[in-house]
Amino acid sequence: MRRFIVGVMGQGEGADEPALAQARELGALIAGEGWIVLSGGRDSGVMRAVNQGAKQIPGSLTLGILPSSVVAPSPDIDIVVVTDMHNARNNINVLSSDVVVACGPAGAGTASEIALALKAEKPVILLSPDAEAKALFLKLGQGRVYISDTPVETIAVIKTLVTI
Amino acid sequence: MRRFIVGVMGQGEGADEPALAQARELGALIAGEGWIVLSGGRDSGVMRAVNQGAKQIPGSLTLGILPSSVVAPSPDIDIVVVTDMHNARNNINVLSSDVVVACGPAGAGTASEIALALKAEKPVILLSPDAEAKALFLKLGQGRVYISDTPVETIAVIKTLVTI
Amino acid sequence: MRRFIVGVMGQGEGADEPALAQARELGALIAGEGWIVLSGGRDSGVMRAVNQGAKQIPGSLTLGILPSSVVAPSPDIDIVVVTDMHNARNNINVLSSDVVVACGPAGAGTASEIALALKAEKPVILLSPDAEAKALFLKLGQGRVYISDTPVETIAVIKTLVTI
Amino acid sequence: MRRFIVGVMGQGEGADEPALAQARELGALIAGEGWIVLSGGRDSGVMRAVNQGAKQIPGSLTLGILPSSVVAPSPDIDIVVVTDMHNARNNINVLSSDVVVACGPAGAGTASEIALALKAEKPVILLSPDAEAKALFLKLGQGRVYISDTPVETIAVIKTLVTI
Repeated sequence: MRRFIVGVMGQGEGADEPALAQARELGALIAGEGWIVLSGGRDSGVMRAVNQGAKQIPGSLTLGILPSSVVAPSPDIDIVVVTDMHNARNNINVLSSDVVVACGPAGAGTASEIALALKAEKPVILLSPDAEAKALFLKLGQGRVYISDTPVETIAVIKTLVTI
Repeated sequence: MRRFIVGVMGQGEGADEPALAQARELGALIAGEGWIVLSGGRDSGVMRAVNQGAKQIPGSLTLGILPSSVVAPSPDIDIVVVTDMHNARNNINVLSSDVVVACGPAGAGTASEIALALKAEKPVILLSPDAEAKALFLKLGQGRVYISDTPVETIAVIKTLVTI
Repeated sequence: MRRFIVGVMGQGEGADEPALAQARELGALIAGEGWIVLSGGRDSGVMRAVNQGAKQIPGSLTLGILPSSVVAPSPDIDIVVVTDMHNARNNINVLSSDVVVACGPAGAGTASEIALALKAEKPVILLSPDAEAKALFLKLGQGRVYISDTPVETIAVIKTLVTI
Repeated sequence: MRRFIVGVMGQGEGADEPALAQARELGALIAGEGWIVLSGGRDSGVMRAVNQGAKQIPGSLTLGILPSSVVAPSPDIDIVVVTDMHNARNNINVLSSDVVVACGPAGAGTASEIALALKAEKPVILLSPDAEAKALFLKLGQGRVYISDTPVETIAVIKTLVTI
């Protein structure tokens, strides 16, 4: 039976500590709900942190969509999908997610994922976004973009979407 | 911890009954080893059969790489990755597999997957191939293509590869 | 000899008349320089307009990167590349362009292309952007994002980049 | 107006001299008809040779679909499309071609392109194929695969297809 997947996007090398802490907590909370954590798969920044958080929960399942066959995945990913498509894999990240969460200030990669998610008509939650990303994507989202301040609030928003 | 993935390729609409029976048995055997079954995700032919077989095993995990967001996945797939890349997703199928098994006579799609697997230097097992595919891919495989007659033998070959 | 390619991105169905007028003028100016016009290939909005403009110039060459094999290209495109990758083709649009111009207010698709262009370290010119896209992408661009008000000014900026 | 594109596939590093000579002649003949030569773009083997041949004809136009942004294109390519998708770009090669010609004995990459072309219902011409590829693809082609012995004969077959 097809399982519910939450995609968590965020900066790799550029992520700051508050974003990493929120990603870790969010990973654990998603896993605690029995949902699968999807990420961009690399062993860096928000991608690494969300998988670390998820794997602290027994029975959790983590899915990583790697950009390249020569890039090492985060060691906390159970299922590695190798695309060798570099940033074009960002579209697969969002198409494979039932809900997309962008964690922390957006870099260019995360901004592309938010935009592609909106293009694909996926619901998007911005967790602690920077002001500029918030302004653009709320405008483009036409009601499909939600803002949250904490991982706990993010889970609450997802539950609202699921029951709809 | 990254789990071992066996990709099973084969015809969709054109699959014959012997190939479907072997795909079902193979899916169950792969799942019985604790390995993940990867397929092209559609609800047809070998893709459907291998997932049906796998899900008869408690604790099994099935991963489908769907070509399109408007195509329904096999209901026996746990984790659906949506690519929207149509046949270009065949390359993701093989890159994400530790070993690729082609089940039954090859159609054009399966032939492309075998060829892409060889290009990616993946080991390939041809289970009950047609004579023409066997001849071409043994020649192109340069020692990376194995022939098997039964699902049980296929598993034995995979175990040889894993211990190497 | 590899020719210089200017990618022009912009809204399809949602484009407004000022953006279309600027796209038409921009297409003619790019073609007048002997550069190739690259677009997302569809027969809609900025994609249609920029090719219309370019083909008014004798000897012009237009290249369209189509998302799907079942979508008709703009009739003013000389060379149609069919990807069947839907929005993942946005990354090909920007990787194949020496410079990326976003024409008019950004929709979600155009926003993804600007972000992917920055990720690929391509220079980006925003021609008459909306305030929100301008704010986010100037911040993310770290010196690689230029703002212009007219097609003539856009060409002048490109020439500055080329001489560098 | 959309121009007619002939995709020429063949081995890179593994190509033998007869295949290279045929690719050069074929490129010149295609260009002589006013058709565009499409190739996989790399500066190696059949890809290099077909573009060399084409560029000996004044007014010729060559299009290369590069697998990677860090691989140099053949210097005889006019229009370089950069995919960064590695072998998944093989599907774009065939989707963008009105007719696909495989030149010389098939390696794994070329075999994948022939198979993907058949999957996409494109006509395929095998020019001097090896016996194993000929046997498999004639079977899979169901009337869409043609065999030719010389570049001149290949052009004649294409003209038959175009008039149909």
